[in-house]
Amino acid sequence: MEPRTEISSLGEFGLIDHLTKNIEIKNASTILGVGDDGAVIDHFGKQTVISSDLLIENVHFDLIYTPLMHLGYKAVVVNLSDIYAMNATPTQLLISLGFSNRFSLEALDEFYEGVYAACDKYGVDLVGGDISSSQKGFIISVTAIGEVPPYKFVQRSTANKGDLLCCSGDLGAAYLGLVFLEREKKIFLENPNVRPELEGEKYVIGRILKPEASKKTIDFFEQQEIIPTAMMDISDGLSSEILHICKQSGLGCVLYEEKIPIAEETRNAAFKFELDPTACALSGGEDYELLFTVRQEDFEKLVLNENISVIGYMTNPEEGKKIYTKGGNKFDITAQGWNAFTK
Amino acid sequence: MEPRTEISSLGEFGLIDHLTKNIEIKNASTILGVGDDGAVIDHFGKQTVISSDLLIENVHFDLIYTPLMHLGYKAVVVNLSDIYAMNATPTQLLISLGFSNRFSLEALDEFYEGVYAACDKYGVDLVGGDISSSQKGFIISVTAIGEVPPYKFVQRSTANKGDLLCCSGDLGAAYLGLVFLEREKKIFLENPNVRPELEGEKYVIGRILKPEASKKTIDFFEQQEIIPTAMMDISDGLSSEILHICKQSGLGCVLYEEKIPIAEETRNAAFKFELDPTACALSGGEDYELLFTVRQEDFEKLVLNENISVIGYMTNPEEGKKIYTKGGNKFDITAQGWNAFTK
Repeated sequence: MEPRTEISSLGEFGLIDHLTKNIEIKNASTILGVGDDGAVIDHFGKQTVISSDLLIENVHFDLIYTPLMHLGYKAVVVNLSDIYAMNATPTQLLISLGFSNRFSLEALDEFYEGVYAACDKYGVDLVGGDISSSQKGFIISVTAIGEVPPYKFVQRSTANKGDLLCCSGDLGAAYLGLVFLEREKKIFLENPNVRPELEGEKYVIGRILKPEASKKTIDFFEQQEIIPTAMMDISDGLSSEILHICKQSGLGCVLYEEKIPIAEETRNAAFKFELDPTACALSGGEDYELLFTVRQEDFEKLVLNENISVIGYMTNPEEGKKIYTKGGNKFDITAQGWNAFTK
Repeated sequence: MEPRTEISSLGEFGLIDHLTKNIEIKNASTILGVGDDGAVIDHFGKQTVISSDLLIENVHFDLIYTPLMHLGYKAVVVNLSDIYAMNATPTQLLISLGFSNRFSLEALDEFYEGVYAACDKYGVDLVGGDISSSQKGFIISVTAIGEVPPYKFVQRSTANKGDLLCCSGDLGAAYLGLVFLEREKKIFLENPNVRPELEGEKYVIGRILKPEASKKTIDFFEQQEIIPTAMMDISDGLSSEILHICKQSGLGCVLYEEKIPIAEETRNAAFKFELDPTACALSGGEDYELLFTVRQEDFEKLVLNENISVIGYMTNPEEGKKIYTKGGNKFDITAQGWNAFTK
């Protein structure tokens, strides 16, 4: 049997010491990290970018099929994704946790192993947070901090008419991973002896359980001296995010279905579940790719990067927000993305 | 009957718009606030201080006797207190909320009314956060950001032998306010027709329901050019915090019971409940006053401020952490402060 250490045997401060004792500071800007009332950060000459997310068990994640290590990794990545979406470099992180006595010290260690793995991969320092008991379930609050030169941060509201509409990576996979895990959960709950068959779905399951943030796209922009005119990360589904950029920039757009990047594995998974791959990309969510607009002059630089797809362009607001389907039809883009309050 | 608007009628983004539409930016350092992937902050020439807290219903607050407006106010103040405890000036705030469908839009408005009142009072900009549903209860995550000149921030670990040990305000009141409210709750649950008698306990109840952060003490330090040698805020009880400063500074201390500031109203409330006022100050918590050490040379400046008490001094570690009681006895200081995991 796995060892189980009760959190209460350490107390709050003992627990914080235990979870943070191996931290090695990676950024010179981290003046003071964990262990005081606040962390102190030095972004002299650069601006500070900050973003916060709240993740609640059985709303944002299901521990039946989410290993705690993956959850820790993902909790970090999801927040870093917001910092990259500002065209900034993440540097520090605060994590607050609430958990019931259902969770042992070993469970928390597993969660933090994922947190530290993500911090290592993205070069970010964990500098603070809070630890608390909860009456029920696992609650994660993550705040990520980054830095950006003043001329370089990119908003959602600054796209221009004629700009190319682009995204990184491929879309829809995370949603299909979720559909797959939900099906396996149902089967498992009906018959705990059935072993799940995950082999063919590794890619889509990996995208939901262990997403990555778009650091390499931001690095590419830096190398090529591209500053997108508008940008955000794709967390709620492509159509919802496109509508945000259109609304906040006061523009319309044209999107081409055939240009939406969808991985072969995603298409196969979609067909297996009798779902339309395009619908999964438009309304799925949790892809954590970047949606951005660039000036047409930057097109030649963009084609160097096969990880970037040009999927449409920005128009006058009067032209609406349109998608041209492969079949040659034209529809309004509607937000059917994830929305916690209307589900 | 009070109107009740279901959150689901607005959707996530409608709700965020509703709750943030009246924000007016107060700090020049707030370059970009709510409405994008992240906020952008400019602390050029100063360092950024950051702190995060997680507040969970029925762990940190009880909505039976906590008005939502007070809760919003307190959630902000508690975090600002951490920024002041670094000798920094709070400038921005992020608030993430999770709540079940038990809460209406009107309830959230009340909560945010308290949030904005605290932001106004302390001159802080709300620049971001997250909104989420929860399966159960009300969950609040607050991240506060402040700024401090590089030479000025104060840690817990930098007290020196011989330094004076001081605190602001008076202690123990919030704990007695809590004891009082818990008693009234019990009476109410047994007989909902009994009206609570709060008149005599206004002060202690005010201290638990609507605490203030120690801005005026930090302003006084600035005016008098005092930089404490170590500092933290008193959230878990005086004895627990003193032990933190001793441990992190590698020192011992002497504390005089008769010097611990306790308000007359607090003493009266303690006697009513047959509690020792000193024990309430030592082990209570939620006072959000400042505990700090200063060089002996600063004593003459300190006495100008009747809101500050010198309660002891720092010693060699070998001398232990001692309290001299009014009766002339000497005891070890032990942490019996609030600890969520051992309750």
